[in-house]
Amino acid sequence: MSGASDMSQVRDLTKRSVYFLTSTALGSSPANRNPYGHGNAVSDFLSNVSRFKIIESTLREGEQFANAFFDTQKKIEIARALDEFGVDYIELTNPCASEQSRLDCEAICKLGLKAKILTHIRCHMDDARIAVATGVDGVDVMIGTSSLMRQHSHGKDIEYIKKTAIEVINFVKSQGIEVRFSTEDSFRSDLVDLLSIYSAVDQVGVNRVGVADTIGCASPRQVYELIRVLRGVVSCDIETHFHDDAGCAIANAYCALEAGATHIDTSVLGIGERNGITPLGGLMARMVATHPEYVKSKYRLEKIKDLEDLVAEAVQINIPFNNYITGFCAFTHKAGIHAKAILNDPSTYEIINPADFGMTRYVHFASRLTGWNAIRSRAQQLNISMTDKQYKECTHKIKALADIRPIAIDDADSIIRAYYRNIQSGENNPLMDLTAEEAAQFAMKEKEPGGLTSA
Amino acid sequence: MSGASDMSQVRDLTKRSVYFLTSTALGSSPANRNPYGHGNAVSDFLSNVSRFKIIESTLREGEQFANAFFDTQKKIEIARALDEFGVDYIELTNPCASEQSRLDCEAICKLGLKAKILTHIRCHMDDARIAVATGVDGVDVMIGTSSLMRQHSHGKDIEYIKKTAIEVINFVKSQGIEVRFSTEDSFRSDLVDLLSIYSAVDQVGVNRVGVADTIGCASPRQVYELIRVLRGVVSCDIETHFHDDAGCAIANAYCALEAGATHIDTSVLGIGERNGITPLGGLMARMVATHPEYVKSKYRLEKIKDLEDLVAEAVQINIPFNNYITGFCAFTHKAGIHAKAILNDPSTYEIINPADFGMTRYVHFASRLTGWNAIRSRAQQLNISMTDKQYKECTHKIKALADIRPIAIDDADSIIRAYYRNIQSGENNPLMDLTAEEAAQFAMKEKEPGGLTSA
Repeated sequence: MSGASDMSQVRDLTKRSVYFLTSTALGSSPANRNPYGHGNAVSDFLSNVSRFKIIESTLREGEQFANAFFDTQKKIEIARALDEFGVDYIELTNPCASEQSRLDCEAICKLGLKAKILTHIRCHMDDARIAVATGVDGVDVMIGTSSLMRQHSHGKDIEYIKKTAIEVINFVKSQGIEVRFSTEDSFRSDLVDLLSIYSAVDQVGVNRVGVADTIGCASPRQVYELIRVLRGVVSCDIETHFHDDAGCAIANAYCALEAGATHIDTSVLGIGERNGITPLGGLMARMVATHPEYVKSKYRLEKIKDLEDLVAEAVQINIPFNNYITGFCAFTHKAGIHAKAILNDPSTYEIINPADFGMTRYVHFASRLTGWNAIRSRAQQLNISMTDKQYKECTHKIKALADIRPIAIDDADSIIRAYYRNIQSGENNPLMDLTAEEAAQFAMKEKEPGGLTSA
Repeated sequence: MSGASDMSQVRDLTKRSVYFLTSTALGSSPANRNPYGHGNAVSDFLSNVSRFKIIESTLREGEQFANAFFDTQKKIEIARALDEFGVDYIELTNPCASEQSRLDCEAICKLGLKAKILTHIRCHMDDARIAVATGVDGVDVMIGTSSLMRQHSHGKDIEYIKKTAIEVINFVKSQGIEVRFSTEDSFRSDLVDLLSIYSAVDQVGVNRVGVADTIGCASPRQVYELIRVLRGVVSCDIETHFHDDAGCAIANAYCALEAGATHIDTSVLGIGERNGITPLGGLMARMVATHPEYVKSKYRLEKIKDLEDLVAEAVQINIPFNNYITGFCAFTHKAGIHAKAILNDPSTYEIINPADFGMTRYVHFASRLTGWNAIRSRAQQLNISMTDKQYKECTHKIKALADIRPIAIDDADSIIRAYYRNIQSGENNPLMDLTAEEAAQFAMKEKEPGGLTSA
């Protein structure tokens, strides 16, 4: 194939790709554009990525986490912290679960928070009557609709579900508060059953319908397709709830918003049944990366770390090493070419500005993967100025040592200083020459992880 | 709207939805069907969800993790464990990174593993010559193509990149080994540049092209669209590499396979730059949930826990509480309705069979969220048989106590036993009546997490 026809093929395919990339793009609200998308000249008419609301369920789904026990005091503390962060709704455990659950629900309703307070009940009039009496701003009703749930959980058929749902919805609405109707295990439910139920509850004026991937099986394109279909069936808001068993809880939430969902369920650190749901911090990472204006203006992102620490302590877990934004390595750069580019311009390897979350960037320079740009930067922090050739030679010495065992930040500093001292003393081909104190310090260190330095 | 027209609207929309759901479905290989999809009667012609390969990069990307230092011994141990698990390729750090990196690469090539050994180099003839001399089965070449990377990393233009790439590819191929060419930061690169480069390297016979979301910005539908376009441009294999900064690394890998990608990069626990890449275990969770036959027949899933423990210990991290499959709560069920259904049929709330990974299921029954089905199941484990009314009353007592403070498994057992003893002794309305020993045991416990029991 000649070069010319090669390029014309590429142009042709590029056109095709533009077709693919814009085939769902009917509008062009700038706020909905993904700045990193190849189709970023256009945006999606359905997309709510820049106008969604958060239903924060740490005090409901999170209470179903294996290790969770929240006493009244702790629930209030968490509710206040969520409110300060700026979540739109706080969802609480069913007041019928236990007497204390009911009392706690009443107590939180009385706090006068800006966030609306919801409670989460089974689709049953007994639960509904107790729920509305607590003083909540809204009730989240749910029932399993998959054949498995119907067989092994409640044993009801679709017509019965529809009839009960309408009764409960009408009752809750008559009390002047919000009501949501959600199916459970929506992605294993028959599509016609689902749409039929959602349509019926929409007709009687439900505020939101909920789609729940209770078992964590859904994949992103499935989510997009179901929500897009549902968006054409109901006129009410659409809430979505995703478990993370198969690692798609954040991605599914994003795709749901792209397809027109309006509300996302989260919990702090994702705690919930099994390995949990869409984490609040992880959702913020996703949204701030592509649509920063909305989340930065609406939520107090700098409070995410304290909020996570509060919940982690309450349920006695460690923040995962790889946690979004607050994990210890979220903003650490190590390989030579990464470090070099980050020192030139952080956005080269960062889509999230750590400062937005009150966090700090680190460039790791004391490893065998270190490049001389990181060493030059560190030397300059130490007020040491050398030629590029000298920085490179010094880097070579650090890498040679890092090949033997992990070296810590002050090891590397010692080497830089010793190297510089040798240059200053006029040696032509300076060897590493530590002082006795430096050598002792270096020898004492065993198995410490490589040093980190703020950059 | 009347009921009839309501239903006809639903039918109409259902037809529309079927159109949406099948609009990309040109084939129907049963192996590619997602059993949980609403469009599960059809499958996607492009999809490789049931025939992908893994390029395991713990010893390359993983070495860029902040805490990673692998000596030769540890590298060999990890390589052998990955090989036993059954990964297709093992990727190693650039032998030009340091002298020890080069020696380790040679040593691992000599192990005679089933997995093919790759090393990962910059797009440069100097690197390529050193790489092929190590004895690897293939070389992964990469270069940044986004304007940011070109400006702040290597400073080269697209024509230069293309020319150098072809030179390096031709050289590696002339040595009789595999070669991959990857762009870096592919999702911030100009689409025409990308396709032009990929097309050019495909023409000279590269084995794979690589798409890398180096900064973790990509979203699932973007990935699907780019890979689908690329699938039409090149005839070679397509490798994909996803960072997890915005929580989409697993979902993006899945969507890439759906669009026709052939190879997925992983690392154990996802370790890599910043918060890492697609984790091997998480990818297995995703694939086994929807396409179990392929991964179960090909990979030794029961080895994932040992593999993760090996790497976690080597880099001195804890397994995250919410880790896929092996996290402590991955198969723990707590809420009453969940526990009831799980006891009837585990697939009600589980898409992954823990036994496939050598793991065990737990039903949490000692909390305020406990349902009487879980208590009946536990009583039966204790060889205690009562009426449903009695199980319910006993459950009520356990929930009342769990409202006050966390109760442990033997607390609940004590209550069940005491309750049963009272019934046996003929009390009409049995109150909880612990023996002195039981009461003392109960009083001593403070702040222990709720008990778990195998079910």
